[in-house]
Amino acid sequence: MPEPVSPIELSSRVQAVLLEAGQLDWHLPVVVGFSGGPDSLCLLRVMAGLGWQVIAAHFDHHLRAESSEDVNRARLLAQEAGAKFLAGEGNVAEYARRERMSIEEAARSMRYRFLFDCVNQNGAQALAVGHTADDQVETVLMHLLRGAGLSGLKGMLPVSKQKSLGVDIPLVRPLLHVWRKETEQYCREHGLQPILDASNADPQFYRNRLRHELIPFLESYNPAVRAVVARTADVLAGDLAVVEDAIDAAWGDCKLEEGPGFQTFDWKLLRALPGGLLRGLLRRAVGNLRPGLRDIDLEDVQRAAQFVSKPPRSRAIDLVAGLRLFIEEERLYIEEKGKASLPDQWPQLLGQEPVSLSVPGQVELRNGWSIRAETMRQPDWRTIEQSGENEAWLDDAELPDRLSVRCAKAGDVFQPLGLGGRSQKLSDLWINAKVPRRARAGWPLVWAGEQVVWVAGLRVGHAFRLREGSASSHVIHLMLKK
Amino acid sequence: MPEPVSPIELSSRVQAVLLEAGQLDWHLPVVVGFSGGPDSLCLLRVMAGLGWQVIAAHFDHHLRAESSEDVNRARLLAQEAGAKFLAGEGNVAEYARRERMSIEEAARSMRYRFLFDCVNQNGAQALAVGHTADDQVETVLMHLLRGAGLSGLKGMLPVSKQKSLGVDIPLVRPLLHVWRKETEQYCREHGLQPILDASNADPQFYRNRLRHELIPFLESYNPAVRAVVARTADVLAGDLAVVEDAIDAAWGDCKLEEGPGFQTFDWKLLRALPGGLLRGLLRRAVGNLRPGLRDIDLEDVQRAAQFVSKPPRSRAIDLVAGLRLFIEEERLYIEEKGKASLPDQWPQLLGQEPVSLSVPGQVELRNGWSIRAETMRQPDWRTIEQSGENEAWLDDAELPDRLSVRCAKAGDVFQPLGLGGRSQKLSDLWINAKVPRRARAGWPLVWAGEQVVWVAGLRVGHAFRLREGSASSHVIHLMLKK
Repeated sequence: MPEPVSPIELSSRVQAVLLEAGQLDWHLPVVVGFSGGPDSLCLLRVMAGLGWQVIAAHFDHHLRAESSEDVNRARLLAQEAGAKFLAGEGNVAEYARRERMSIEEAARSMRYRFLFDCVNQNGAQALAVGHTADDQVETVLMHLLRGAGLSGLKGMLPVSKQKSLGVDIPLVRPLLHVWRKETEQYCREHGLQPILDASNADPQFYRNRLRHELIPFLESYNPAVRAVVARTADVLAGDLAVVEDAIDAAWGDCKLEEGPGFQTFDWKLLRALPGGLLRGLLRRAVGNLRPGLRDIDLEDVQRAAQFVSKPPRSRAIDLVAGLRLFIEEERLYIEEKGKASLPDQWPQLLGQEPVSLSVPGQVELRNGWSIRAETMRQPDWRTIEQSGENEAWLDDAELPDRLSVRCAKAGDVFQPLGLGGRSQKLSDLWINAKVPRRARAGWPLVWAGEQVVWVAGLRVGHAFRLREGSASSHVIHLMLKK
Repeated sequence: MPEPVSPIELSSRVQAVLLEAGQLDWHLPVVVGFSGGPDSLCLLRVMAGLGWQVIAAHFDHHLRAESSEDVNRARLLAQEAGAKFLAGEGNVAEYARRERMSIEEAARSMRYRFLFDCVNQNGAQALAVGHTADDQVETVLMHLLRGAGLSGLKGMLPVSKQKSLGVDIPLVRPLLHVWRKETEQYCREHGLQPILDASNADPQFYRNRLRHELIPFLESYNPAVRAVVARTADVLAGDLAVVEDAIDAAWGDCKLEEGPGFQTFDWKLLRALPGGLLRGLLRRAVGNLRPGLRDIDLEDVQRAAQFVSKPPRSRAIDLVAGLRLFIEEERLYIEEKGKASLPDQWPQLLGQEPVSLSVPGQVELRNGWSIRAETMRQPDWRTIEQSGENEAWLDDAELPDRLSVRCAKAGDVFQPLGLGGRSQKLSDLWINAKVPRRARAGWPLVWAGEQVVWVAGLRVGHAFRLREGSASSHVIHLMLKK
């Protein structure tokens, strides 16, 4: 660990984060998260000394008997620094019970909501918090022990936006390269009496055990381990930025569609990505659909990547937090279960009930699709041959009066044109025509009684085909349109 | 930690590394680094059982009294597996003293040299070693404690080439996803008696303390910490591959020249790189010049990156292992001190002594440059105006008989054309013309006695300029050529 720095050096490090990294505006206020402990007190005083308009915002977690006394002491400390003071409070223990969070998580969540509210309500430009290099080291080690990949191991950033909290306010950490020892020294040298939180020593809290037991133990392996871990975090943050840039590029290449609750990607391109990029892209996709999810488990990401490389027969898996992956038509879907709408390239019925189709007449389908029927004089053969799959020409003489439009049932067979009158299972037709499973149940078929006249857009029934030299002077023309 | 796997599952994991990741050829032998301990014994037996032609290579480090006894036991174990056996030995303690290495480093260095020799001398395709998932976890933690960035934290790879050992033979680690517990269980279930190395318990060795003290301590924080760290290594290896691809691209963009002992880069492009890429590129440049250097300290890389962003006034720093960084003409040089040759775009004298220049005549310079002199009839003014900086037209009448070519001395002044006969320091000319400091001492000047006639390629002396309407019918034409 480097030698404690002089107060001037400390000020200039704080200033560098605010002005260079944070690009903050000298003329606008900054809210400082202010527990009144040595770190936030040092931060408040240094920023006030540099001439920043600081607003000290103190949150009472109601976790300790003396917490309301702390509010008064914090107010005095803020006044001494010449800072405006705001206080907030919340019943953390109750919130934790209700939301099934740990006390630490609940405290963090309530405190940050209060702090960002203070920023919004006071025309401030940013929230500054007193995380030190020691906090950074603890964070990195915590992530290592829990398994969080590069994004966790890089620790906290000097400047960031807290997407997981759903706010667009910069969070700056001007003390991230200052050691706790240095903030304590600063307070001593300036005759300040910071509030000491006894719970910081309570080994019940994971972070405290890490601070008071693990790190000293690691120092027996390398006395400089704190400085090493802090520097590693900086370096990994740089590496992560490179990886993020590469993910941006891959995202642009592979993403096909993005809708409410789902995203689709080009499966073939995904499979060609290097493993690290694929995992990063999947992590980002999950993060987009579940912005509240703070850490996505490495194992889940790995499982998703394996699914992309070697999907099981069913071509679908449940992932995490109600998300599902499936592959269809060379597309990878990530969806909140059932949210991915069918691509509107597929015609789909509006409902389950049969709908009668008059001639002339029309039946509406989903997404602007429709089926129209008309009678016309028999056109020349060339016109018929040049018509596409979305048109059908039927022998008027063979057709009963009434047509209806409805879906197929499992096991339905029909006699398609081209098999000389033999029967085929509809399920085989779906497969040959590459109709995705999800699109089959709602696919529109035109029926005459119990016989399939036309699987819309795909195949005419053998019995109803228009023969060259048919006796009828009129034909029925069906059209699938969008 | 996952449950121990069945022997079949273990075999198939080994086979996957050999065939899929390693792309090894079934028909060619593989050398197995064979201590005779549970890991390498398990590896040897599993590979032999899968039908691979294995050669067990055992190295006697002479570090323990019973080591020669171990050689005999290892031979028997190899024979039982149906493997060819090779033995090698070396005095590690003495080597460590001589090369000023730790015992562990020296042992590793000698052992690998022997193992790769075995590969070369036996027509083998690869070296397989018995590193397990536990070794991986220990390696990652060791790198974390020492500070080695992503390339260290990613741990060992299932397949790699050991550039630092200067060999191009694949090193495969088929047990990298198998736990030590599983190799031990394999040995028990097959009634094998591996050689147990008592030094594995010796807490004098850093790695052993890590194994027996640190990891169990970390398990008190997260019982699954080993599995977490092993998975983290896999994920970071993927991230590193993404970063390496990006470095490849940046390297292609920024690298200008590569010679024996030096490399040059476009400084402007380097400064525009994101920090992570810049550091990766610098790390690679150092690695190219010093392939023996195993780990480049994060701090050195950081220092080099800071130099690129904000070079000191001198525009040069010493880096590490006798390497120097300097900036010249918008180029960043990384060199073994004094190795970077001047770019051959600069004309330089062959030696220190003055060389006489006859008219007509020629003086040879370095790198194929030369200065030629000729007398000619005065050309039309247009020809003169259109000639470039590498030609000089002088008034025959003003010149003495003898010209010579030599360098300038510190403090030399001359009367350049264009200042109306006033004097200028040569050092000012160098700066204005952006001649790099290193090129000044050897720069060729044409002299008439103690007067500068021509600073080759840059400026003619005022006194010798050709005036319009000069009385001379002849001129002297000097040319700097390459």
